[in-house]
Amino acid sequence: MSLFLLIDILGTIAFSISGVLTALKKRMDIFGIFIIAFVTAAGGGTLRDVLIDANITWMRNLTFVYVIAASAVFAIIFRKKLGYVRKSLFLFDTIGIALYTVVGVEKGIAAGLPPLICIALGTMTACFGGVIRDILCNEIPIIFRKEIYATACIAGGVAYFALLKTTLSEDIIVIIAGSIVITIRLLAVTFKLSLPSIYNKRELTEEP
Amino acid sequence: MSLFLLIDILGTIAFSISGVLTALKKRMDIFGIFIIAFVTAAGGGTLRDVLIDANITWMRNLTFVYVIAASAVFAIIFRKKLGYVRKSLFLFDTIGIALYTVVGVEKGIAAGLPPLICIALGTMTACFGGVIRDILCNEIPIIFRKEIYATACIAGGVAYFALLKTTLSEDIIVIIAGSIVITIRLLAVTFKLSLPSIYNKRELTEEP
Amino acid sequence: MSLFLLIDILGTIAFSISGVLTALKKRMDIFGIFIIAFVTAAGGGTLRDVLIDANITWMRNLTFVYVIAASAVFAIIFRKKLGYVRKSLFLFDTIGIALYTVVGVEKGIAAGLPPLICIALGTMTACFGGVIRDILCNEIPIIFRKEIYATACIAGGVAYFALLKTTLSEDIIVIIAGSIVITIRLLAVTFKLSLPSIYNKRELTEEP
Repeated sequence: MSLFLLIDILGTIAFSISGVLTALKKRMDIFGIFIIAFVTAAGGGTLRDVLIDANITWMRNLTFVYVIAASAVFAIIFRKKLGYVRKSLFLFDTIGIALYTVVGVEKGIAAGLPPLICIALGTMTACFGGVIRDILCNEIPIIFRKEIYATACIAGGVAYFALLKTTLSEDIIVIIAGSIVITIRLLAVTFKLSLPSIYNKRELTEEP
Repeated sequence: MSLFLLIDILGTIAFSISGVLTALKKRMDIFGIFIIAFVTAAGGGTLRDVLIDANITWMRNLTFVYVIAASAVFAIIFRKKLGYVRKSLFLFDTIGIALYTVVGVEKGIAAGLPPLICIALGTMTACFGGVIRDILCNEIPIIFRKEIYATACIAGGVAYFALLKTTLSEDIIVIIAGSIVITIRLLAVTFKLSLPSIYNKRELTEEP
Repeated sequence: MSLFLLIDILGTIAFSISGVLTALKKRMDIFGIFIIAFVTAAGGGTLRDVLIDANITWMRNLTFVYVIAASAVFAIIFRKKLGYVRKSLFLFDTIGIALYTVVGVEKGIAAGLPPLICIALGTMTACFGGVIRDILCNEIPIIFRKEIYATACIAGGVAYFALLKTTLSEDIIVIIAGSIVITIRLLAVTFKLSLPSIYNKRELTEEP
């Protein structure tokens, strides 16, 4: 099994479990939980493929459908004990968004789209599964309020295009761009960083 | 008029009226009511066609647009009296999801997709109009919480593929698979069945 | 710069600023504000292009991405002072929906779709960016409750097809159909018109 496939599967597991946890909070039934796990893991890539009119991967390659279903069953059974693997999940999630970002950027390049749109597609691949999850759970998407993922993905995408102008091989570019996503995300979480707030104190305390 | 077309129209009427009733509860205006009726009846099939990159039926064949609009007008005018036809509506809805499931499965097969995905497409055709309706009405989709439709559709889809391995003709397979959807749904409603709950009492009473 | 392009840009500015204002009310961060500005301005046309399986304009022509981003930055910085340009924004928005409606109708005609569907596509182009904005902000779409835009767009679309049967040139038809959208919208806002309510007093006061 290639390293990329392994990373992809670990990321899918982390996204799927994050979907299960959100669905459990909303007291959904088993069917609802599976749907939310599925859209969290596969929704960003699906939206990307619809927009660029590409074939949707999970419809022809069932590997990820099985991974998502198995992770969801695991998460439902061991939901009381997921606290013990929280750190592993966070790590899987972080390398997952790094890979998803790079995959999205490369799909955009393959479709002949301009760099800015490729970066947007990378960010969408990594972040919009969570957006669809939150909409289906009747919440304002968390990444629109406390930005956790998106800035890291955008930075990774920008780095990808900057490195394309060097003589580095594609593999090295992928690894550096992915590492930038991972580093920014780890720093943001470690130091509780978020985007600079544009609201003053009065705005944040008064009734929106 | 063929039997299938008649069933399709009856199902569309039931879905459209269900959309009107939800929109009325949210005090929407006439435009909003029509949109909700439309997405409830046509949303599942539209999502399926976008995912498999097929032509969207209602854009070229206006029959269902007229049926939805007429049902919506009827439901708005007689909204106080829809209680009297509740049983007929329920019956139309039930045979409607059976047909929508089979249609979705067959569209998946025609697109060369694996059985698991075809079953998912059948379930999506039958159930996701209601999901989009609930999202537009700012509710958590009802089928994610109290599963009413989806299990019946999945069972019908599984039966379809099991029967494909027999020597039965396609017409007979469609009728048996559809009947399984209808039977499970009728049993579920008659005996108030739902999926086994994964929550214990404490989880269900405490604040989510 | 052609007149149409100018109108298109003015409309995009107005839509983008409307998205920023909604996102600010929800206390979103900078990333969330940009996404909401973007879907408000580009969401209706994107949905239309996905449904008719056309290329999505903003993915290949970045002009509108830049216009949306610049308007969003402007609106964030001057958010306390947007009251002073409210009338200009309203005017831009009104000519914007007129143009979007006509563009949507013409894309439908180019795709060989029936008039009723073309009118729906025009209305979708003008109105569904706002619908997606409201869903992402966890609100019932405003145009489903207090109809502000949609009727004007539908009337403009109907006029377009009526005028196609005359000997008028396409330019004149576009101008008349667009003017009808603008006139109805201005009259609706000036005289506070809305669609006739289908609810009686009791229905509106009791708990929905």
